[in-house]
This record gives sequence, structure tokens and C-alpha cells, in this order.
Amino acid sequence: MLPTIAREGDVVVMIDQRKLPAEEVYVRCKSAGEVARAIKTMVIRGAPAIGVAAAMGIAIGMRRSKATGTQKFAAEFHKICEQMAATRPTAVNLFWAIDRMKRAFADAAQAGASVDQIKDRLDAEAQAIHDEDLANCRALGAFGADVVPSDARVLTHCNAGALATAGYGTALGVIRGAVEKGKKIAVFADETRPFLQGARLTAWELVRDGIDTTIITDNMTGALMRQGKVDLVVVGADRIAANGDTANKIGTYGVAVLAREHNVPFYVAAPLSTIDLDTPDGDHIPIEERSAREVTHVGGSQIAPDGARVWNPAFDVTPHRLIAGIITERGIFRPPYSESLRKALAEERLVPSP
Amino acid sequence: MLPTIAREGDVVVMIDQRKLPAEEVYVRCKSAGEVARAIKTMVIRGAPAIGVAAAMGIAIGMRRSKATGTQKFAAEFHKICEQMAATRPTAVNLFWAIDRMKRAFADAAQAGASVDQIKDRLDAEAQAIHDEDLANCRALGAFGADVVPSDARVLTHCNAGALATAGYGTALGVIRGAVEKGKKIAVFADETRPFLQGARLTAWELVRDGIDTTIITDNMTGALMRQGKVDLVVVGADRIAANGDTANKIGTYGVAVLAREHNVPFYVAAPLSTIDLDTPDGDHIPIEERSAREVTHVGGSQIAPDGARVWNPAFDVTPHRLIAGIITERGIFRPPYSESLRKALAEERLVPSP
Repeated sequence: MLPTIAREGDVVVMIDQRKLPAEEVYVRCKSAGEVARAIKTMVIRGAPAIGVAAAMGIAIGMRRSKATGTQKFAAEFHKICEQMAATRPTAVNLFWAIDRMKRAFADAAQAGASVDQIKDRLDAEAQAIHDEDLANCRALGAFGADVVPSDARVLTHCNAGALATAGYGTALGVIRGAVEKGKKIAVFADETRPFLQGARLTAWELVRDGIDTTIITDNMTGALMRQGKVDLVVVGADRIAANGDTANKIGTYGVAVLAREHNVPFYVAAPLSTIDLDTPDGDHIPIEERSAREVTHVGGSQIAPDGARVWNPAFDVTPHRLIAGIITERGIFRPPYSESLRKALAEERLVPSP
Repeated sequence: MLPTIAREGDVVVMIDQRKLPAEEVYVRCKSAGEVARAIKTMVIRGAPAIGVAAAMGIAIGMRRSKATGTQKFAAEFHKICEQMAATRPTAVNLFWAIDRMKRAFADAAQAGASVDQIKDRLDAEAQAIHDEDLANCRALGAFGADVVPSDARVLTHCNAGALATAGYGTALGVIRGAVEKGKKIAVFADETRPFLQGARLTAWELVRDGIDTTIITDNMTGALMRQGKVDLVVVGADRIAANGDTANKIGTYGVAVLAREHNVPFYVAAPLSTIDLDTPDGDHIPIEERSAREVTHVGGSQIAPDGARVWNPAFDVTPHRLIAGIITERGIFRPPYSESLRKALAEERLVPSP
């Protein structure tokens, strides 16, 4: 199992995803600030993994607190939560994890817990978020495996793998689930410019697992599908709106349009924590824009001339009409998503029953 | 005017397109073999420019010949023509230019020309191919400018610019033509992995010309169009089949599908020499596959793990149904292309009248 993120005492340890696959370097974050910086600079990325990291960051931040009174402790807590919330805007799992930590804090405080007891409670909540994420990935992988044909050639975009989660992965969890059921899967990994998560991370993970993996540049997807070489697309998600519109890594939308054009089923795989019923549709999902340098430089080399502008949105939105199903730890949800997603979350008691 | 390729005595000088925009280095080819290698290794690329380079390479190769009898001279000529034809398979302009050189040779030989006279004839033919290409680009740019709205935001893929031709460009010729007619054009340049012709070459050319240019990664095209930010797409071509199916840089097909999805007109700009009536449709166009290293390495950095496969086709085919018009030096041709293209070439006396 890949060690995406782990707790060692009061330190959060992460593999530095910016340096893979050339180097396997671990970053040791000793404070909430260091965790926030690691999220912002993409030492760790992937919506579920960001949620886990934020929770662990809050836990170690509060563990270091010297406050003795609950009031000062609560003030520090809320400051750290704000710091985490300001790291990246699109992945809703980040805000979901922070909310869980806030509820854990409030529950403990309401029950009259001491500062030390609240610290323990926050540690336990962060660990639960981590452990549940791993379990959710395994569960959704098992559900998703059923829609993957034997001998399927599966295309995925970006990295929705062990590195994007506490482990096992969402889209790659579906692929791993299919392999575990004895299916013979060949994977096409879009390289996923500008950060190259597909070439650097997805290929690295899958090759380690002995899964047949072919890297293509993002602009080869159309030609590949036109040649009839893709049976299924499965991708992760950073935020799924109430109507099923899905924000995911930039380029996902183009893949979805091409999949429709070639009658290839397009699936999204994500834990329920990625579904945001407070966001009615994709137009309301905030899309992060990142620095021009991610586009103009690769591995230290400048590939673009000075004087050209750059547009660098980190995500795009795939409209629900292009999505064949949303694979979660509670099963696969089908259109109309405005009904199926609300019902799923109500059964999880994550929202009031409709 | 950009010096893509020029003749200096018996030397062919080319700007090294692999090193732009970081360095402006000129490569001096002193033999046909050196020109062939420059084409193969993409010192020079772009269908019309490859044709010009091959013609100039043949001319300097024969200029160096020590043969005194026409028979030995002819044998050397055919060997050099074969060497040029083996460099790259997709761009038909290469074969068109070689055929023109062969016809020039045959005409001169038939007229009883001496070896020295044939050398002069080959020099003149190569220079004519160069000069006509430049004139054709200017002519098609003027025609194409008419389909570009004022204040248009134009997306282009790869580099179909001055660097891909003897000068001025095809797709970028249309943009330059529109600018010359006083239109205010903003250009989006797909970076065009793996060779990055968009980011490295198109942006460099356009910034030099003071044209507003924004670089995007190839996977951002969908999001950009969905936001309504593209009014027109214009690309070059490496080979246009008799039915209008068009081979162009890998990724062009995906752009065309996305353009159709968003009701953005998609134009191809190319000289008539790119049209190959002997190829009935896109399925019959040979598609070059290039080395995995172009995908796995960028500027010396390895971005993919060992053990992953790579698929690296250099071109794809856009079916004619997605093409709004083909902009040439004789005007803009419209569907049905199987009629309009044949008629155009017949009028040019490039094929027998239908």
C-alpha cells in the first residue's frame, strides 16, 4: 500500500507528489501551517487526500497548542480551520473534513471535555477520516468493478489513485477492484498537463501494481477513441454538485465530450464526501486558477516565450448529461442525479431526508 | 519576416525549431543527408516547410555531385529523392515537392540539358517551391481573413505559422491576414504536446508580431470553448484526402469535436499542395508514430516512470464533416469536398479535368 499520508506522533508525513516519479521524498510537516503550505503547493493533492491532510493538520496544530482555557483553545482552532480552508477552493472534501473536525470539537466542548480531551477527540476524528477514506475507496472499487468489462481498456485522466486518497484510490480503486476480481485490464493514462499527474503519478502507481499502463498526451484521447481502443472512462472528482455536474481536473470535460462522441461510457468515482448538495450545479463550483509558471515551465525548462499570456484553470466542469454513473462507497448512482444523490446522502444521514 | 529556411550558396540554413524559444540557433546543412536528418529530427517541421527543405536538400545534394554523365547523375538523384521520401510519412507536401523536383529533372534531361544545366534547373525549381509557398501563404491569408470576425478570439493548434512554411504561415497566415485588414485578433495557442509547437513556436511567432497570445494546455480547450471564449478555430494540415478528411498534428481531431460541440466554426488552412487526391479518405493516410521519449521527457527531465508504455502518434485525422471550410491560395473550399477539391486542383492543372 502506498504511504500517501501518515501520522507519526505529532508529525504529518507525506510523500512529495511534486517529485514523483523521479524521487521518492517524504515531507514531514510539524505544524498546521506546514500542512496548509503542503496542500497549497501540491506536495499532496487529490480531493480526498486533501481532506485527510487538512484534518491531520488541524489535529497536530491543536496538539501543539499551549492554551489551557477552552476559549483561547477554540480561538486557535478556528484560526487553523480558516488557514486550511484558504488553501484550495475547488475540492469540497477539504471543507467537508474541516466541518467534521469542527463538529468533533463542538461535540467534545459541549460534553464538557478538557483541552487535552478535545485534543484526543480531534486526533481520533482525523484518524477516522483517514481510515474511512481508505475503506470507502475499497468499497467503491468493488462496486465499480462490476461496470468494467473483462479485458477492458480503461482510460483515466489525472490521478485519482492511492496518491489522491488515503490509499487504494477512487478511479484507480475501480481499476484495482476489477483486477482483484480477475479481470484483465489495460489502462490508458492521460499525462494531464500542466502538473502531469497522469504520467507522473497514475503511471507510477499502476506500474508498481503490475497493471498494464500506456501513457498518452492529453491531445491523443480523441484519436485513441476513434480507433475504438477505449471501452470505458473512469475519473475522480473534486466536487459533485446536487445535479450531478462534476468538477474534476482540467481536461476531464474534453474527455467526457469525446467519450460521448464515441459511445464510450464515462464514469465518475468518488466518496460521498465529494457530493455537495449546497452547490446546485456546476456553474456554482469555484474553479481555482493557478500560476502561469505551471504551464510555461516543465522540470525547470522554460517552454514558452516571455510575453505570452497563460490561462491555467486547475479544474473544469463536466455536465451531468455526459456522466453514465457516479460510483460511490454506497453503490453506483444513475441519472437523474438530482434525485439519486440527495437520496443517497439522506440515507447516510448526511442531509435531512427529503 | 522569420528566416525559417534559406539557401546560402550550397548550404541550406534553418533555424533549429527544437531549441526555440530558449535559443535562436541556426543549423547549416551542407549535404542532402544533413537536410534529411534535419527533417527527421524536426530541426524543421510543418508540412509546407518540409517540402521546401526536401527540394533545397535535393538541389544542394545534386550541386555537390561529381558525376559527369547524366546516367550516373540520374542514379544519384533518385537515391537522394528516396532518402528524402523516407524522412517522414504523413505530410504529403514532402512527396509533392520531391515529385516537382523529379519532373524538373526529367524535363531538363529530356530537353538534352547537361549535368550543369540540370543542376541549375534543380536550384531554380527548389527556389520556386520556396517562393511560391510564401506567395501561397500570403494569398490564403488574405482569403481566410474574410471568415475571421473583427475582435475574434481564434484558437489554433500546433504551429502552422511562418516556421511551418517558407514564411507567413497557413493558419497563422489567416490570423496575420486578419490583423493586416485591421481586425483585432486575440489568439489562443494550444501548447501541443509532446513537441510543444504551440507554446514554443506559435506563441514565439505571434508575440514577435505583437499579436495578443494566450497559451493553454491542450486539455483546456473544452473548458475555454464552454465558457464561450473561442469564436473560430483555424489549423494547418499535413495531408488532405480527396474527400476532405484532414491529417494534422495530434490533437486536432479532439479540437474539431469540441468545436462542433460548441458551435465554433473549424477551418483548415493549407496550400493546394497539401491536397492529395490519390488518398481517397483519412483511413488511407499513413500516420507516423514517433519515439516514446518525446512523451516521457521534457527538456531533459523524465516525467514518466520506467515500465509504462507510451503511444505517440504524431498526427490524427479530422473527418471532413467537422470542417467548415478549407482555406487555400485559390479561395475557400466548402463541402462537399470530394467535388470542390477536385475542381480546384483541375483548375490548377494539377490533375486532369473531371
